[in-house]
Amino acid sequence: MIEGIRRAAAKTASPWVKLGIGDDAALLQVPAGFELLVTTDLCVEDIHFRREWHPAKSVGHRCLARGLSDIAAMGGEPVACFLSLALPPKLPQRWADNFMAGLLQLGRRFRTPLAGGDTSTAAKITADIIVLGKVPAEKALLRSKARSGDRIWVTGELGGSAATLKQLYSGGKISPTVSNRHFYPVPRLEVGRWLQKNNLATAMIDISDGLSVDLAHICEESAVDGVINLDAIPTAKTADLSLALHGGEDYELLFTAPKSATLPKRIAGVLITEIGAIRPCGDRRASVKSKDAAGNLRLLRPEGWEHFSKI
Amino acid sequence: MIEGIRRAAAKTASPWVKLGIGDDAALLQVPAGFELLVTTDLCVEDIHFRREWHPAKSVGHRCLARGLSDIAAMGGEPVACFLSLALPPKLPQRWADNFMAGLLQLGRRFRTPLAGGDTSTAAKITADIIVLGKVPAEKALLRSKARSGDRIWVTGELGGSAATLKQLYSGGKISPTVSNRHFYPVPRLEVGRWLQKNNLATAMIDISDGLSVDLAHICEESAVDGVINLDAIPTAKTADLSLALHGGEDYELLFTAPKSATLPKRIAGVLITEIGAIRPCGDRRASVKSKDAAGNLRLLRPEGWEHFSKI
Repeated sequence: MIEGIRRAAAKTASPWVKLGIGDDAALLQVPAGFELLVTTDLCVEDIHFRREWHPAKSVGHRCLARGLSDIAAMGGEPVACFLSLALPPKLPQRWADNFMAGLLQLGRRFRTPLAGGDTSTAAKITADIIVLGKVPAEKALLRSKARSGDRIWVTGELGGSAATLKQLYSGGKISPTVSNRHFYPVPRLEVGRWLQKNNLATAMIDISDGLSVDLAHICEESAVDGVINLDAIPTAKTADLSLALHGGEDYELLFTAPKSATLPKRIAGVLITEIGAIRPCGDRRASVKSKDAAGNLRLLRPEGWEHFSKI
Repeated sequence: MIEGIRRAAAKTASPWVKLGIGDDAALLQVPAGFELLVTTDLCVEDIHFRREWHPAKSVGHRCLARGLSDIAAMGGEPVACFLSLALPPKLPQRWADNFMAGLLQLGRRFRTPLAGGDTSTAAKITADIIVLGKVPAEKALLRSKARSGDRIWVTGELGGSAATLKQLYSGGKISPTVSNRHFYPVPRLEVGRWLQKNNLATAMIDISDGLSVDLAHICEESAVDGVINLDAIPTAKTADLSLALHGGEDYELLFTAPKSATLPKRIAGVLITEIGAIRPCGDRRASVKSKDAAGNLRLLRPEGWEHFSKI
């Protein structure tokens, strides 16, 4: 198992990884002038995915995509990933092979070698992905830097992943094609780096739990209020407004930029849309409000997607 | 849960962690002239520990100790740790609190703040610990640098952890005292750093799987043979030679040093013992042999501790 992973991982080289799998720890170089980003994300069978719904390749892809998306949300560039993987003893080898293929394929696309990890057995498939990234010193895009007057922007379209999940829940058959953002989400790394390099965003987060939850995180960390225009939300064709507001796992970027900033229509080919504005915190606690076409303001409760935990 | 961990983690400050828990990724500084060490270790309930045998505090301690021991084995200094933790929904909060207390207490002792992670639910307690460390550039102690003629050394005593585990298996009652190396192993960080700073070791590994397995790793990676003197093995009072040779989880350091090197009797207060020598690889595959008092050589098969996986 380890040897197979080691061989597969050896195909993705990186100038930052001096020593990968095979010693007590991996050895990395962080170039001068950069800071290190570290993120970990757990994927547990029947909580984050189901074997009957998600092909192994999609599970491996989604696992790494979650971590890469966190690096994108900091404006960073991935350096290497690490995988701790626990598998049931009776799991077909083919499942493990396809899982690794999905993970490593996405890693090659974004120059993120697998540099180490651990393996174990477990009753349920459990994968913990650790992604290390780098960002120029003092330049990481945090959640805490949104300022009153900033505009709120989002990449791509929202709700598509949740729409697919809703169909799966209701027994619908969905082909897990590569273009389906639920099965094969693409982290917005180029957009994140472009925003960092051009100094255009004040705060940023990736939409993993849902717009309502993740915007609330920015508002809480920045001690501001957010107001979003309901008719401006870019909603996926397959989704409705509720899924676009509360559906998770789209892995789009949500960011704030000064009112005066001039942003292009697309960044690295990805549509970006202005969806609202940051206001001073009107209460002791930061809040998010929605504004409809008539101008009515309503509190938007964070109702993020609860994964599968309540099934 | 996350908030509780965040508060608890905030107590251990580090000059290397610029931003800990609370954003998409943690932000770390690696000082110029240093390389980064990264290690991940999975702990799964009923595989690596049993709730009826191991108090939660011991499980948390052991979890971080495994990662710190990997950093010690590279001659490094820990910088920060990250924890991905999946817990059963019905687990008493007290268990989680004690687990975190054990982990964070060891973290404080070795200046290793918890800087991030992830949480989830799962049927079995699953903890993945990630430890980042630093080591002066080009100075990490690898498994692959043992040379023919080197002497083989080990810290402390071997077999004690396995002896406790054997007692637990056979239904014996053992008080999980802090001084018991099975329940509260202390990573040999000071010894590892001392050897690195004094340029005295050629190769190093920590004994997590057992002397026979871990020495085989050094021999394979260095393409050499190892010969150990059976009557030189420092065996714990509670253990026998077999447990000292094959029992895992002692987290002592196993290292090689040139024949000409003068080593003290103790390093950082820890006894060190010369147990054998490195020889040229006598066959296509590296091997480990044992030598008894009469001088008879026998192949020593790697028979590392199999954790609980075969129960």
